[in-house]
Amino acid sequence: MEERAISNIRGEKALALHKKMGGKIRIQSLARVTKESLRLLYTPGVGAVAEYLSIHPSETRSLTLAGRLVAVVSDGSAVLGLGNIGPEGALPVMEGKALLFKEFGGVDAVPLVLATQDPDEIVRSIQIIAPNFAGINLEDIAAPKCFDIERRLKETLSIPVMHDDQHGTAIVVLAGLINAFKVVKKNISRSRIAIIGAGAAGTAVAKLLVRYGVGDVIVVDRKGIIGTHRTDLAPEKKLLAEITNGEQREGGVVEAVIGADAIIGVSAPGSFWVEHVRVMAQRPIVFALANPTPEISPEDARAGGAVVIATGRSDYPNQINNVLVFPGIFRGAIDNHVRTITDEMKLKAAKKLASLVAHPTASKIIPTVFDRRVAKAVASVVR
Amino acid sequence: MEERAISNIRGEKALALHKKMGGKIRIQSLARVTKESLRLLYTPGVGAVAEYLSIHPSETRSLTLAGRLVAVVSDGSAVLGLGNIGPEGALPVMEGKALLFKEFGGVDAVPLVLATQDPDEIVRSIQIIAPNFAGINLEDIAAPKCFDIERRLKETLSIPVMHDDQHGTAIVVLAGLINAFKVVKKNISRSRIAIIGAGAAGTAVAKLLVRYGVGDVIVVDRKGIIGTHRTDLAPEKKLLAEITNGEQREGGVVEAVIGADAIIGVSAPGSFWVEHVRVMAQRPIVFALANPTPEISPEDARAGGAVVIATGRSDYPNQINNVLVFPGIFRGAIDNHVRTITDEMKLKAAKKLASLVAHPTASKIIPTVFDRRVAKAVASVVR
Repeated sequence: MEERAISNIRGEKALALHKKMGGKIRIQSLARVTKESLRLLYTPGVGAVAEYLSIHPSETRSLTLAGRLVAVVSDGSAVLGLGNIGPEGALPVMEGKALLFKEFGGVDAVPLVLATQDPDEIVRSIQIIAPNFAGINLEDIAAPKCFDIERRLKETLSIPVMHDDQHGTAIVVLAGLINAFKVVKKNISRSRIAIIGAGAAGTAVAKLLVRYGVGDVIVVDRKGIIGTHRTDLAPEKKLLAEITNGEQREGGVVEAVIGADAIIGVSAPGSFWVEHVRVMAQRPIVFALANPTPEISPEDARAGGAVVIATGRSDYPNQINNVLVFPGIFRGAIDNHVRTITDEMKLKAAKKLASLVAHPTASKIIPTVFDRRVAKAVASVVR
Repeated sequence: MEERAISNIRGEKALALHKKMGGKIRIQSLARVTKESLRLLYTPGVGAVAEYLSIHPSETRSLTLAGRLVAVVSDGSAVLGLGNIGPEGALPVMEGKALLFKEFGGVDAVPLVLATQDPDEIVRSIQIIAPNFAGINLEDIAAPKCFDIERRLKETLSIPVMHDDQHGTAIVVLAGLINAFKVVKKNISRSRIAIIGAGAAGTAVAKLLVRYGVGDVIVVDRKGIIGTHRTDLAPEKKLLAEITNGEQREGGVVEAVIGADAIIGVSAPGSFWVEHVRVMAQRPIVFALANPTPEISPEDARAGGAVVIATGRSDYPNQINNVLVFPGIFRGAIDNHVRTITDEMKLKAAKKLASLVAHPTASKIIPTVFDRRVAKAVASVVR
């Protein structure tokens, strides 16, 4: 009740601030406009640049802002914890993301919400506007269509395309886990990690953890543990069934977390609770990443015996936030002319991010959002 | 030969400057990012704004940059005098236009070139990205498809859409003509004006001149004078045949310009010459607007007897340049929440622009591009 009231007060303040500002970013000229500069930057001089690029289109990125500008694209189908609220609802979030790109990575970014939720139209419209951009940050697009949209864009575009809800989350979660396992003095490659939630984030986290070499990963969706026994799985989950759940467990959250060394919640408040933590292995790690309200409160996780606890919130220790990742990923991709963000880069980014915490403790497994070393460090491995 | 060499030197300089700058605009934050501001501008506070806009989408423009941002959209099918050079070639021109929007109108604008030249795809992709923008400036899209694209967008979008090659040109030409007719002491409403060229610009100029009340307008395309006698006309030219050429003249450029008070070239170098000026009415007005090389040189026009001469060039008097119009049009539309740029507004804008030259002379019929009163004056009539 009190939590709700606080959230409402903050909501009112946020609305008032947005109304006062009328948006969070603007366009800035890079050139002084004089009679002479105009003849070079606009007609007639720009005609030579236009003609040159029509013959050498691959050099567009070195002569225009297309070499620097990232589009933060969403159809508004899965925004924050709010669900399918459409493009207008998504726009302030995407503009906020553009602000973070600039602030933390020095990356020029514009929000671009789409007035369609049809996957074919989403793909085609992004292909059509792609020549203006150095990268596409997909955001808040619902699973499972997000997988297909990202795959098709990666196949057809020559600029980096990254669905941040998937890969940004996966990278920062892996970084946090690397240090969490150091704190509890366990070997992550012989560990069992349960992921509660199999949407965009859960799927990408599971895949990256497997790729990193976690002992066993087990994923639970609304219908229970994902495994080869399930006959109701969409393509992306079928893939998960093949690469996770080595013990072929069946059942629900309880069956998944028994004996687990870590539990990663990427679902909704209440999807697991203190009793689930109690049946985990010794010195359990709990990441409860539903935002703004975690799956389990840090207090309850502690009561269940959790030693390392992380959430998405800034008012608790160990904030797992994608802003630790996306500015650096795109900064590196732009600076190093990277066309595809590979799994190798994601693993390196996670390790690099983890390495910034020299001596991990239970209350410090990940750098804070305001740690100015982060974007540069992440960028350094995207090459 | 010398002209060509000069143009090449400028081209080299323009290329070098573009390479050095890597684009002409960038993104700027409007907010200081602190731990507290982040909670309002991004999660969790932005969630309240997102939720609010999902319920009240019409208020998106007051809470986000969508209330300020103009898209400068082109498919690269008719760029400057270069023709169909595609999206990459068009991009530095559109970015230059974004620079001018900011410099002269204080309007935030982004270039957006499209990797398609299909009218249906152009219309659909602009509809899909429209929620991000306060206006759409169409640019350098070939006739006749530009007419249909603009019409369909105006019918379906609730933000101003203006094809600048048409309407920006028409407004600045009319402004120049109003003052030119004062200089030659003739009544424009009893005058005959010949337009050479019936592309996007020629068509829009003709329509606006008719709307303004010019005595008779006559338009010539590549096949000759447009009139009801022609059986080969596309829809937009059929309309021109109905509203122009009151005398039902037939023939080519010569037949069109005999006895004309003004000739407006919106075509290509060499489409009329000194002999054509000689057969015009007394004290002729010549606007030779092909750029960078006019239809006829100002020297030849003078030799033919022209009293008032205008071109698109900055190195001669009377530069007819759209930059006198588009920053103010969109500035006014944004400030006054105008959804459609009407013919009435275009006429008012032309009169207002003309009125800024208190005492027109043969060498001063239009304000210069750097006259800082212009955008504000034009904006004041868009309401």
